[in-house]
Formats: sequence, structure tokens, C-alpha cells
Amino acid sequence: MRAKEKTLDDLFLETLKDIYFAEKKILVALPKMAKAAHSDELRAAFEKHLSETEGQVERLEQVFELIEQPAKGKTCPAILGLVEEGQEVMKDFKDSDALDAGLLCGAQAVEHYEIARYGTLIAWAQQMNKPKIAKLLEETLDEEKKTDVLLTQLAESSLNQIAA
Amino acid sequence: MRAKEKTLDDLFLETLKDIYFAEKKILVALPKMAKAAHSDELRAAFEKHLSETEGQVERLEQVFELIEQPAKGKTCPAILGLVEEGQEVMKDFKDSDALDAGLLCGAQAVEHYEIARYGTLIAWAQQMNKPKIAKLLEETLDEEKKTDVLLTQLAESSLNQIAA
Repeated sequence: MRAKEKTLDDLFLETLKDIYFAEKKILVALPKMAKAAHSDELRAAFEKHLSETEGQVERLEQVFELIEQPAKGKTCPAILGLVEEGQEVMKDFKDSDALDAGLLCGAQAVEHYEIARYGTLIAWAQQMNKPKIAKLLEETLDEEKKTDVLLTQLAESSLNQIAA
Repeated sequence: MRAKEKTLDDLFLETLKDIYFAEKKILVALPKMAKAAHSDELRAAFEKHLSETEGQVERLEQVFELIEQPAKGKTCPAILGLVEEGQEVMKDFKDSDALDAGLLCGAQAVEHYEIARYGTLIAWAQQMNKPKIAKLLEETLDEEKKTDVLLTQLAESSLNQIAA
């Protein structure tokens, strides 16, 4: 298909593949972050978000079904970059008191990437008059926003620990 | 310095270098996005944000001065990935009616990256008892959030145009 003939449906599908790839990378990254975390609360938060992410991947697969397309990821350079930065912090701040703050920083950047992507996909789904899809994606967006708030709270308590 | 001896000051400096590198990449990307945009409003929004970004780079240079460190960027794989995704959309949706929606999607992902990073840096600056630095970074965070809201409004009107 020529670029100029593409529509919002094509853009939706490309972006869906992008976030599907990203969620699967996050499934691999989260257990490593949980293992690296010093504080029990942070480890528990990463583990909770891991199980949420599994549900988010399933929701994306339902969306692919609803638009009658195979569930397929597409390389997402942004998530690769975000994960790479997280790995750098784990290496550069290994065993340091600031490690948890660094892990949190990386995790919140990932959350914001997802918040941006899901927000856009929901607006497009509404525009394309696909309320079932919009509703599925809204459930995920809601989880991502809650995770971001939880991470902010943990960041504050983790900073207090560093200061103590 | 060994990883385990690093502190929150080191983490702050590394993250400051990361966002400084990112802002400079954004300075290069925005004029290309403005040129590609179909709608006059979107072009104007990118141009406005370009001049804001110049001020944000200057603020970061003031922060480097306040912590008595040379203003130096550090490769930020996340922004490289985000910019790469934006370039893909510009190529894949060239001359299509969905191009502006795609440009907006990319720009909002970048805004959210910045919102996450500045939010973290501000929390750390407050923790390190550096209110001048926190205030400078808050000015930028405020601009980024306003830009994100403006882009959401434009996305809605751009979708209405596609539908029209």
C-alpha cells in the first residue's frame, strides 16, 4: 500500500503492534527489576505489575481479534531504549543506596510511555467508533496510571530511606 | 568510583545528562516535524514548543552550573528510540490523511518521557535540599504538561478533520 493511501485504521494497527511488542519486553524486564530491587515494597510492586502486564497482553490480543488481525508485535525502538537505560542503571548503581531510586525512575519512564500510547489508541478507537476496543484499552490505561501513582509513593518513601 | 559507593547526587547528575541529551535531540527533531505537519495549527504548536525547548535547555545549563558540573549530555537510548519511531511514521504515512495523527502520537510519547524524567529530577532535588534547582525544573515540567494538553486538544481536532 502506498503511504498516501493509508488511513487511521492502518495507524491504529501499527501502534497496536508497537505497544504489543513493548508489553512483551516489559514482561521480560520486570522480573529482573524485581530481583535487583533492594526494598521489599519495590520488589512487591514490580511483581504485582508483572501479573497486571500479563492481563494487559491478553487484552491486546482481544483487540487484535476484534479488528480481525493476527496478534503480532512490531519492533518498538522506544521500549528498547527505555529497557536499555534501566539496565545501565542496574549496572552502574549495583549495590548502591541509590539503586532503588534509579529503578523507580526507569519504571516511571516506561509507565509514561504506556500512558501516552494507550491514551492515543483510545482516542483513535473512539474516533473509529469501536467502543468495545476503547473500553478494553481504558481498563489498561487505568492500571498504568494507578501503577504510576504507586511508584511515585514508593519513590518518596525510598528517598526517605536513602536520607535516613 | 565503584557502583556501590554511588549516591543520589550521582544518579541526579546521570539523569540530568540524559535529559540534556534528549532536549538537544528534540531541538533537531521538532523543525522536521513542523515541516511534515499538514495542519497549520499542528505546525504552529511544534514551532511554539521548539522555542520553549530552547529555554528548557538553558534552564538545564543553569542547573549544571548550580551543581558546579560542566553541561554535558549522555547518550539517551530512549529518546533515540522515540525519535526513530517518529521518523518511521513520517515515512510510512507520508501524504496520508492520518499523518498528523501519527505525528501527534509521537510528540505525546516524547512529552510523557520528559514529564517522567522532570518529575523524578524534581523529587530528587527536593530530597537533596536544592530548592533553586527544583524550582527551575518545575518551570519546565509545567511547560511540558501544558504542551501535552495542547497536543491532546489538537489530536481531537485533527481526528475530526480526518473524519470530515
